[in-house]
Parts: sequence; C-alpha cells; structure tokens
Amino acid sequence: MAQVQFINGQSLSNIPWQEAPEGIRNIPLWRYSGNPVIGRNPLKGVARIFNSAVVAYEGTFIGVFRGEQTNGIPYIYLGCSEDAIHWSFNEERIQFVDEDGESFMPIYAYDPRLVKVEDTYYVIWCQDFYGAAIGMAKTQDFKTFIRVENPFLPFNRNAVLFPRKINGNFVLLSRPSDSGHTPFGDIFLSESPDLTYWGKHRHVMGKGSEWWESLKIGGGAAPIETSEGWLLFFHGVAGTCNGYVYSIGGAILDIDNPSIVKYRCQNYMLTPEEWYEERGFVPNVAFPCATLCDADTGRIAIYYGAADSYVGLAFTTLNEAVQYIKSNSVVTSIDTEIGKR
Amino acid sequence: MAQVQFINGQSLSNIPWQEAPEGIRNIPLWRYSGNPVIGRNPLKGVARIFNSAVVAYEGTFIGVFRGEQTNGIPYIYLGCSEDAIHWSFNEERIQFVDEDGESFMPIYAYDPRLVKVEDTYYVIWCQDFYGAAIGMAKTQDFKTFIRVENPFLPFNRNAVLFPRKINGNFVLLSRPSDSGHTPFGDIFLSESPDLTYWGKHRHVMGKGSEWWESLKIGGGAAPIETSEGWLLFFHGVAGTCNGYVYSIGGAILDIDNPSIVKYRCQNYMLTPEEWYEERGFVPNVAFPCATLCDADTGRIAIYYGAADSYVGLAFTTLNEAVQYIKSNSVVTSIDTEIGKR
Repeated sequence: MAQVQFINGQSLSNIPWQEAPEGIRNIPLWRYSGNPVIGRNPLKGVARIFNSAVVAYEGTFIGVFRGEQTNGIPYIYLGCSEDAIHWSFNEERIQFVDEDGESFMPIYAYDPRLVKVEDTYYVIWCQDFYGAAIGMAKTQDFKTFIRVENPFLPFNRNAVLFPRKINGNFVLLSRPSDSGHTPFGDIFLSESPDLTYWGKHRHVMGKGSEWWESLKIGGGAAPIETSEGWLLFFHGVAGTCNGYVYSIGGAILDIDNPSIVKYRCQNYMLTPEEWYEERGFVPNVAFPCATLCDADTGRIAIYYGAADSYVGLAFTTLNEAVQYIKSNSVVTSIDTEIGKR
Repeated sequence: MAQVQFINGQSLSNIPWQEAPEGIRNIPLWRYSGNPVIGRNPLKGVARIFNSAVVAYEGTFIGVFRGEQTNGIPYIYLGCSEDAIHWSFNEERIQFVDEDGESFMPIYAYDPRLVKVEDTYYVIWCQDFYGAAIGMAKTQDFKTFIRVENPFLPFNRNAVLFPRKINGNFVLLSRPSDSGHTPFGDIFLSESPDLTYWGKHRHVMGKGSEWWESLKIGGGAAPIETSEGWLLFFHGVAGTCNGYVYSIGGAILDIDNPSIVKYRCQNYMLTPEEWYEERGFVPNVAFPCATLCDADTGRIAIYYGAADSYVGLAFTTLNEAVQYIKSNSVVTSIDTEIGKR
C-alpha cells in the first residue's frame, strides 16, 4: 500500500513516543509503558483527571482537562507540559467570559475537546443547558476564553470540531443523546458559517453491528486530515449485564463530504485491558479525546480517558492505523449515504 | 382590566364560533357542540386524523392534517373547508420536494403545524432523521411544498414558528426529546436568519410544578401576538399509573424577548373529559396545534387533537383567555430568566 500522508500536517519532533512492543499485537495501537500519565488526586480539590485534550503550542504542549472536584462536580482545568507526558495544572478552573468580558461560567463542564481552526483554539465540552448540551469557547492565548453560543439544543454530548473549515463552514461532529446515560447514539455532523447559527445537519455513522460498538458511538479526537480522508478515532460502547464498556474505534470519512464514511474498522482499535482502564470510578472505559501528530514521521499519540479516573496515552502510526482500518473495513448503506432525510 | 388587543391581527368574520354555554365553567375554553369535527376513517386508507393545523386562506380555510394510515404510519394530508368545521381532504399525501424540485419525502411525518410568516406558509412536523426530529417545508400556493433544511439534530418534537420575525430572525419553539415516549421535556426557542442555520437557543419554560403539566410540556399552536405579549396555547402532560394525560395550558411570553415568560396559568385551560378525548388510540389527550383569530371580535377558535383519534374544536375570547391566565399566573425564576446557560 502506498504511504499515507498527512494533509496540512505539522512537524512535531517532540511528539511523545515509544516504539511498538515486540510480540503479538491484536490492535494497531500500543500503550505508553508509563501509563497512566495522570494519576489520582493530581491537583488540590480535584480527585480525578480524565477525558482531556491536548495540543502542541509554542514549542511545548497545553491542554484542557476534565477535573472531577472532590464535591463530585466536573470542571475544566488548564494544564501545560514540556513533554506532553508530565503535566502541571492551574489550580483554578478555566474562567469563561461572554463576548463582553463578563464572567459566564457553566454550572458544570466535562469531556473537553480542544481544536485549532485557523488562528484560534476552540474548547468544546458538555455542560448544563437545562439538560446536557454542548458548550463552546474560543481562545487565542489560553488566558481569555470567550464563550460562543451553544451550538445545539439539549441533549447532546461528544462534540468535536474539524480542524479546518470545509466548503467555507465550520464543521462539528456530535452525538445527540437523552437526559440519562443514553443507551443509544449515532454520530452526526453540523455546519456553521459563523459559530452562532448551525445547520445542514447530516447523519455520519450509526452504532455498529459489532458487539463492541453495538450500543452507541461518539466522536472522539478531532478528525485528522490525510490523503485517504479524515481519520477519526471515536468511541464505541457495548452494553453488558454489568454496565457499559467503552473502546476506541477508527473510521475514515470522505474529505469533502465527511458525512460519508469511506472505511470503518469492524474491530476495536483499543479496548480496556489494563488495570487503569478496567478499574476506577467508571470501570471499563477507554475514551479518546485528542491526538498529536508528527507529519515527518507519521507518528500519532492518542490521549484517552481511562475508567473516568486517569489519562492514558497510546501510540500508532498513520500508515498502521489507516492500513488496519482499510483492511478490516465494513461499511453499511447507513455509513456511506449522505445522511440527509 | 383594559381590553386586550391583537397585534397584527386580521379580520376573520367567518371564524367558526359558538357562544359559551350557560352554567358553571371551570375553564376559559368551551368545546364546539358538534365535536369531534373530524371522526374516524375520514379518508380512504386513513384510519384517524388528529393533531392538525389550519389557517384562513383566500376567504376559506386550508390545513395540514396528521393522517394515520391503515398501515399505522402517519403522514400529512392537505384539507380544505368553507366553514373550518366540515373538511374535505386530498386522498394523496402531501408531496414534498427539495430545492431542485425533486421528490423528497419523509419516511413518516406527524403533528404538523402551519404558520404564515410574511408571504409564505410553513409546515413544521416531526419526522425520522435517524431518530425523531423536526422537518419543515414552505409553500406559497399549497400546491408545491419545498422542504428546507431540518432545523435541529434529533431528538425533537412539537416545533412551531412564531408568525413573524423577531429582531430580524425567524423564531421557532421546540421541545428536545429522547428516542422514546420522553418522560421529560421543556420548551426552548431558537433563531434563524435564513431557515438554514439555527442558533441563539434559549430555554423558555420548563415542566410545571402543577400535576397536570408535571411530566413535560410542549409548544402547541403558533403564538398569537397581543398587546399583553405572545399568547401561547401549549400542552402539559401528567404521568399517571395508566399513562400520560395531555391537557391544554396557557402562557404569555414577552413580545421582544419571548424566552421570558410574563404569565403562566397554573391551571389547565382544557383537560380531557369528553368521550372523544378520553377514548381512542391514545386515551386522555387534548393536544392543541392551531388557532384561528378574529381581530374584530376577539374570538379565538382552537384546533386540538383528541385521543390521537379525532380533531376537536374549542372556543374562547382573547380577553377571557388572557384574563384567566393573568389572574391564575404563577411564574418561577426558570420561567422569567432569559434562558441562557
């Protein structure tokens, strides 16, 4: 197979990295040997950090982190790192303001994603909007975080922006939900010319027929632009007699019409097996939220929440991930249609 | 109390009408003595018509009707009437097309509302969009119905437009839902400059503390512009051991900021009591979908679905309805706030 290329990719020579271990590997991702990279009680007043997102920034790394306070309420904290493995956090929660600079804090905020589009970084999270819904803010300096309009009515979770506009519009993946633990869920796509008004909603992909993603799926890390299409690491959920199991899945979306799924891996890319994935506040969760990529080497580092208690780090290469997805791809008409009804 | 006036109201001398009956009335609405105005099996292949909306049109009346086919699938049918009481229907379902004139039919369609904004009539309904969601189409002649983009992601029901733009934008009420019978639900408001992209979502009002609306509420007829604010007939739902009970409620929204509730009637305005409301495919449902108003007399005729089996007609006057709502109003901070989080 020809080499897969990043499109609009950046060099990131300081990407965290370990070579793949020797021996049998059933999956195209391998875990960092020092996992979890963020352990329990990492910050005063915060019991657990997980489901968090990072970006390369001015030669180092910065991120937005879901911190579960000791009162049980989740909020978003800022962290920074020299190596993207060892993180230090601001003790104070991110202070969101409105367009006029007035404080405009969510009641709670969780599962942040962090995506750069043009010259601005966007934080996208889940919050209370008289029901669980998507919140969004923009920053250019990681000091001032200005909230934009909530893109959708409740109930919605797992929203993540594409890293560039498509056909002139911002594009956002999300997973419509219900008011509880949502025993269903597909990934949809929506467009916006201005981040105030959203529309042209399209269905992207539904829960899978395979058991590991047969209950629901949801967007994970921001899609990665490649010569094969948008590479998406998402989460798929199985329902068992003892609760949900969250695995990492992989798919490739059409570059110009990303509601069309080109390839969809029928196997999980990573599933809970290690103690920090199987044990914790919510056992059996591997929940991808961000990637770092190095265009020179094809290396990809994946950040994922583990058991709602830790942050884990896994590696793959663009070639290995894409080849694995393509050679194990099964798509249905629901996946390949434009998603308009 | 000073007389309440319609704003932008039209004369409608042929509005259907009966005077209020003598004797004790516990509610400000009274039923048409000939109810139900549409009975069972009104059309070949259609078992029941209910939850339907009408407008005055070129000296007569026209409407969009939820027709439950004998295969159990709901669709929207066009009907017309000289007196707004006796209706005749097109045997063929309304044929929706896309912007290019190509057929673009929903898989199913139910609970249509019909609202004129400027020179165009809009049909708003619930349909499958990989889950229950809002569909919308526009027509100027009731011959060609052109679908516009679905305004929202699933899951949503009970959407109805305001009859004019506010601050330059279309404004739509809706009730975010889940994938089932939705044992919760508040009314939200969304704006659009162009009917393609929607945003500036605001919470309008939540389920009430009173038992008759303590499970959920949803938008009903298009809001009526009055000198006291937007008069809204909505539905409120109680949950009982034997199922849901749908009553008609009344509220008045701020004229410029309709996410602010000025008055909210703590009592129902009408609740199932008659055989055609208590008996049927879904017992105990009074579900308002449309009104006709005569600006000269203050008369209001309310069309409501009865027991998912019939169309009922009820009457009130602007003065009586508004006075009853104001004198029985209880609002909470959830009602009176702007609804932004």
